[in-house]
Amino acid sequence: MLALRVASRRSVFLYSLVSALFQTSLSKIRKMSQECKFVQVRSPSSTTPTSADIQGIPGPIEVTDEVLYANAHPSMSHMSPDFASVFGNCLRMTRQVLYSKNAQPFLIAGSGTLGWDQVSANLVEPGENALVLHSGYFADSFADCLQTYGANVDQVKAEVGDAVKESDVETALKSKKYKIVTVTHVDTSTAVLSNIKGVAEVARRVSPDTLVVVDGVCSVASEEIRMDDWGIDVVLTASQKGLGTPPGLSILVASQRAIKVYENRKTPVTSYYASWKKWLPIMNAYERNGAAYFATPPVNLIYAYHASLQQIIQGSVSLEDRFKAHKEASRRVKHAAAALGLRCVPLSEDVSANGMTAIYFPDGLAASDVIPRLLKKGVVVAGGLHASIKDKYFRIGHMGATAVDTKRGDIDRVINALNETLAEAKASKA
Amino acid sequence: MLALRVASRRSVFLYSLVSALFQTSLSKIRKMSQECKFVQVRSPSSTTPTSADIQGIPGPIEVTDEVLYANAHPSMSHMSPDFASVFGNCLRMTRQVLYSKNAQPFLIAGSGTLGWDQVSANLVEPGENALVLHSGYFADSFADCLQTYGANVDQVKAEVGDAVKESDVETALKSKKYKIVTVTHVDTSTAVLSNIKGVAEVARRVSPDTLVVVDGVCSVASEEIRMDDWGIDVVLTASQKGLGTPPGLSILVASQRAIKVYENRKTPVTSYYASWKKWLPIMNAYERNGAAYFATPPVNLIYAYHASLQQIIQGSVSLEDRFKAHKEASRRVKHAAAALGLRCVPLSEDVSANGMTAIYFPDGLAASDVIPRLLKKGVVVAGGLHASIKDKYFRIGHMGATAVDTKRGDIDRVINALNETLAEAKASKA
Repeated sequence: MLALRVASRRSVFLYSLVSALFQTSLSKIRKMSQECKFVQVRSPSSTTPTSADIQGIPGPIEVTDEVLYANAHPSMSHMSPDFASVFGNCLRMTRQVLYSKNAQPFLIAGSGTLGWDQVSANLVEPGENALVLHSGYFADSFADCLQTYGANVDQVKAEVGDAVKESDVETALKSKKYKIVTVTHVDTSTAVLSNIKGVAEVARRVSPDTLVVVDGVCSVASEEIRMDDWGIDVVLTASQKGLGTPPGLSILVASQRAIKVYENRKTPVTSYYASWKKWLPIMNAYERNGAAYFATPPVNLIYAYHASLQQIIQGSVSLEDRFKAHKEASRRVKHAAAALGLRCVPLSEDVSANGMTAIYFPDGLAASDVIPRLLKKGVVVAGGLHASIKDKYFRIGHMGATAVDTKRGDIDRVINALNETLAEAKASKA
Repeated sequence: MLALRVASRRSVFLYSLVSALFQTSLSKIRKMSQECKFVQVRSPSSTTPTSADIQGIPGPIEVTDEVLYANAHPSMSHMSPDFASVFGNCLRMTRQVLYSKNAQPFLIAGSGTLGWDQVSANLVEPGENALVLHSGYFADSFADCLQTYGANVDQVKAEVGDAVKESDVETALKSKKYKIVTVTHVDTSTAVLSNIKGVAEVARRVSPDTLVVVDGVCSVASEEIRMDDWGIDVVLTASQKGLGTPPGLSILVASQRAIKVYENRKTPVTSYYASWKKWLPIMNAYERNGAAYFATPPVNLIYAYHASLQQIIQGSVSLEDRFKAHKEASRRVKHAAAALGLRCVPLSEDVSANGMTAIYFPDGLAASDVIPRLLKKGVVVAGGLHASIKDKYFRIGHMGATAVDTKRGDIDRVINALNETLAEAKASKA
């Protein structure tokens, strides 16, 4: 019924807008015809001791000028053909980032967290079982969300710094019938990388009906994910990490198998805003470069996401090389930390993320010795987050432009700041 | 427990960022020090027949250059003191727009629709009664949302073009115990204005425990709302209408009475992303200009909202004069329509919105005769939306800068385009 209502509404929205020209002009002489490039400028840290030039946090990450410029697009109707075409491109390019041919993307105004609600409300019915693989803080939150919607949740917990072993996943999946298994690809609290390909392989082999749900908030576009080849059913993420866009967009991609499970559910979806019943006709309309209405999409952010996807999918660096660039940036940061005698939170290279690094403070130094000094050098990093070790480590993000556009020199700057900071901090204690 | 976890986490986020300088520079000569004003330019409609210069739709509305510029703010950490202070200001200024001293604002990444989920999930427990006053399309949607979360919903429906009469509200409220009564201040489908002050007065008098919930998506900052004086418990809205910001921000303000009702609920909140249990500690932290984490806020959009609120609250036009400007713009558009012999959807001036106008096509003309012609003249309007009359009328938005900044000449342009369009359309049928 909704689909019909939407379709009939769309037919009377006869908007047609020009591709809005968008130029900046010289303020003094008001010559509107003269263009002037849009460039973000931060204050140089050398002259402003408290300035911070690099968002070296695991999101929101540094975004390119082109993306910011697109985020300042003049107002456009969400029902206009121009916007519909941009939205349609975003759906298709999102699919490409995940190497999927026919999975269903959902682009909805919201934080990454809304992806958990989408999974919990649409794919799991009250009383059904969910298996959560725990490699850090965000598994607890996903479990909390699933329980809110009535799921029975079991967690398999890895020790801090490790991912859940595939053998443990196999044991758990054989013990009980699970509707879904969730795995955090990169847990932002620990920088632990899980082997989602391995988890999916185990699930397909020992519990083929269980849907494999990947929390890819801190991994999409910084770590390789091959949804179709690996048999992954859901990847949920957000705009402000590897996808290089300001925050505010919940991005979820569901396999057709997952969509069928949703379509065959026996009980109604228990969320309104996160309901695929509402959003599926909308995404289908935009996919056909048409427009449909359930709730007003974040128009400007969609333009910004489009600009970033174009850089990711159609830019000078291929998607494969983008993953390599993240590995190289990661290798450099982790090598620098090791050269300083610092230990990372992930227990081995196999479980180490490529888009961020979590580093224990050395003996005798604390957050207050390290983080403010990095800040003075223009590098913003994040403190600890995992409850059991939160005061003992800090986190550096190196995703998107920071990892891929080596001309920026972000990684050099992070490493230099780290070297200088550790030397100063140790000297201050001597 | 969450509050504790959040508090402890916050303490280790020791970010401190400079107020990011943000300048544009001349691209040709790369003189970064020379400033260049950020101005949005649209193509003149005279040279491009398909161009559209004015978003004359009831949202997303035209936004100012300063707001767009703020939306292009370089990446900032959501945990930084700079951002926290901006977020805190947004909370305080949101309260000011509604003339409230101590109501609780929630600013969450999402569409306006998410406000319905917040009300339905936090304030109404499954099996409780909700009364929905129907003055158009959006009441049906709000009712649908309430039912999704288990409420028993009764609707009192006004005839098309009218608001529900206070006597009918009184009868309904006396017939049954209702947890909440909802009223759409301006229904975007009909441009009908409801007397929310009157509804609140009736509720307080005959059913004092019933919470009065105002859907103010199409009214906040374009129509006067005095939350405290009028005894309103919830106002929910979105960023892209009277508040003059790009879409993507769900804005809800709850009275302390409503917060108490939420705190005293017997059953757990049945949404995760819309749960005030999650968001209340976050809003409290930002109110104190600190930061806390549940889900990453839409950082850039908060900067944009801040810029718009500064113009609304601290700009050269007072809030009172802003409402007057909307009335004047509305009077001009409606007068022009009347002079053309056109009839508005609202049945009387008393129930006519000031931020938009819904106009029936004259006999013999249809959407296809009018809307494309307006588009050619650079005025984007919206088609019909209310199911029973949707092909018979169109809608013009005149909120925010379009109504208040008369130097823009938007209203003149809309009226001229309307006059020319009707003359041409009639001539083509002669």
